[in-house]
Amino acid sequence: MTETAEFPDPDFGDKTRPVGWLTPTQMDEVRGLMPLVYVDAVPVRVDESGDVVQIGLLLRATESGHMMRALVSGRVMYHERVRDALLRHIEKDLGPMALPSIPASPQPFTVAEYFPTPGVTSYVDERHHAVSLAYIVPVRGDCSPQQNNLEFTWLTPEEACTPQNLAQMQGGQDVLLKQALAHVGRLPDM
Amino acid sequence: MTETAEFPDPDFGDKTRPVGWLTPTQMDEVRGLMPLVYVDAVPVRVDESGDVVQIGLLLRATESGHMMRALVSGRVMYHERVRDALLRHIEKDLGPMALPSIPASPQPFTVAEYFPTPGVTSYVDERHHAVSLAYIVPVRGDCSPQQNNLEFTWLTPEEACTPQNLAQMQGGQDVLLKQALAHVGRLPDM
Amino acid sequence: MTETAEFPDPDFGDKTRPVGWLTPTQMDEVRGLMPLVYVDAVPVRVDESGDVVQIGLLLRATESGHMMRALVSGRVMYHERVRDALLRHIEKDLGPMALPSIPASPQPFTVAEYFPTPGVTSYVDERHHAVSLAYIVPVRGDCSPQQNNLEFTWLTPEEACTPQNLAQMQGGQDVLLKQALAHVGRLPDM
Amino acid sequence: MTETAEFPDPDFGDKTRPVGWLTPTQMDEVRGLMPLVYVDAVPVRVDESGDVVQIGLLLRATESGHMMRALVSGRVMYHERVRDALLRHIEKDLGPMALPSIPASPQPFTVAEYFPTPGVTSYVDERHHAVSLAYIVPVRGDCSPQQNNLEFTWLTPEEACTPQNLAQMQGGQDVLLKQALAHVGRLPDM
Repeated sequence: MTETAEFPDPDFGDKTRPVGWLTPTQMDEVRGLMPLVYVDAVPVRVDESGDVVQIGLLLRATESGHMMRALVSGRVMYHERVRDALLRHIEKDLGPMALPSIPASPQPFTVAEYFPTPGVTSYVDERHHAVSLAYIVPVRGDCSPQQNNLEFTWLTPEEACTPQNLAQMQGGQDVLLKQALAHVGRLPDM
Repeated sequence: MTETAEFPDPDFGDKTRPVGWLTPTQMDEVRGLMPLVYVDAVPVRVDESGDVVQIGLLLRATESGHMMRALVSGRVMYHERVRDALLRHIEKDLGPMALPSIPASPQPFTVAEYFPTPGVTSYVDERHHAVSLAYIVPVRGDCSPQQNNLEFTWLTPEEACTPQNLAQMQGGQDVLLKQALAHVGRLPDM
Repeated sequence: MTETAEFPDPDFGDKTRPVGWLTPTQMDEVRGLMPLVYVDAVPVRVDESGDVVQIGLLLRATESGHMMRALVSGRVMYHERVRDALLRHIEKDLGPMALPSIPASPQPFTVAEYFPTPGVTSYVDERHHAVSLAYIVPVRGDCSPQQNNLEFTWLTPEEACTPQNLAQMQGGQDVLLKQALAHVGRLPDM
Repeated sequence: MTETAEFPDPDFGDKTRPVGWLTPTQMDEVRGLMPLVYVDAVPVRVDESGDVVQIGLLLRATESGHMMRALVSGRVMYHERVRDALLRHIEKDLGPMALPSIPASPQPFTVAEYFPTPGVTSYVDERHHAVSLAYIVPVRGDCSPQQNNLEFTWLTPEEACTPQNLAQMQGGQDVLLKQALAHVGRLPDM
């Protein structure tokens, strides 16, 4: 799950913090009290007929220095619509020229429930309990990794589903990726 | 939206409060900080072919003494799965003999975003911002209104969509009801 | 339902008829034997956040000289993928510059079952029994009515759902339009 | 794909053949002209919270004497609703005591397009082109294999997804099974 930077700018003072942003202390408190609302976006390239030809994955370094692949993911803020949160997180991770097609319908292809405890569902996030609405998002423009992302790579469904690639995904996002491919009818023969 | 009783038992002390329940003070604090995760359930009676023949609506009195119709609705708690929250709220409102068929898939038919400010979406909840996963739930057993519900009534899609009935629904649940009927292919000619 | 021109070119001889096209005699025979596979497309304009701002409707004259509004609709041919049929029918009706975004997922928002007999479902087609997969299709380009369409008009959800406009739709496509708007969360308060 | 017996009773004459049934000659003719409408049902056992705990698979012998596992599958007939076809095929394969819960919504979890030519999609049916609406169907009753089915077995998602079991499925139904499990959030770690 994307390490959402709650403070993109260190000079960003409390007074000017927009509605929805929380202080680290507030965030810590809330995390233990209730599930957070999240979105997961699976960026895809489609052909003229809408068929998915590639999936986009972020590459970043974990705190322990390992390389990991990730979907675009992040929190829905107070007074923010789900579709605006999707757009914000995609632009945050892929840059302002990505030209994402945010889905017209709010119906997600699945709901990924990240629990702090492993084994309750297929998804884990040690930091908190998050209920994440997952969407396929076709992207037409140029993507460039932003913030703490080292790389953004387009992979075919077959490349994305190699054991090597799936092993680089964390918190059950490998499962979520396969669910996305199943939903678009492009799950490779594994 | 269902007035979720956070404390079903007034003698329920803090020490023995199960994981996920919040004190009124905690609840108030959290409500202004981030969106809550909710579920909305549309109870239905189906025939042998799965066709929806009736929709179940709760009747309750508002604080101002007006009568209102409502769907089953409530919060997802910390460390609770969406499907368990659905089951809990249905049993809370319809009683233990309702025999609901909780959907096998976590994919909701829509996501209703209740904002404290009217006009952002079709749904409003003055108390907070809630992101609600909405499901159709076939119910086979006997339903009896529980808690602050005065009545539970089965209506045909046509009866449910009369202007009189829709006017008794609050916070945009009339829209959600029509979305549910549209999803099952039973939206009446209005 | 769109009057699918099975023969766009009257000089189109049998020898060069592509796979999937049927002679009128074959079509008549088949129509009484089994359901046809159809697609219905609801063309929409979306804003940056994916929110539907307009719906596109075709205007054409019926054989009796009445004006009717219609969605894009047509048959899936032998050995044609559903997504290719969607693209073909949109280009047939809206022209080659429409730039439709065919959905990545084959999951339709609903299935409209057109029966020759009224009353079985909400949809009727006197000519045959058709099982139609219905999709929302965002369109980014310039649309110009083609073939027997007199006009192609963009309407807001509110404009599309006026009784006047809905009354101009046939075979239950008014119901399908409302289902589409319900699915994208833009069903007007009626 | 289920070998649909178009004539369950060899003595079933033409005069009394119900609407929708075709003679073998008619069936052969139609098969080369246009796609057939099919349904695929994935029978599941669910727990109280709707979570899928088992998937039901049919065992039958192919013409060449091999054993194969199959989902419930079959044609939608002329003037038959999709939901009635689902019910008919489930009762045909699992017997009259299966007590299936046919979905309230006509929205399938996916559309499987079986082509006579391999490679166009993930699904193949040498006999014809079929567009199949695929549904998850919870089954509460007792299932007993009917007709040419030798056995009906309940498997956990993990058992169903072993390479051995998947290799026994034909025409891409192994892919469809994994798509079904992905949709209900129970795709095993493979």
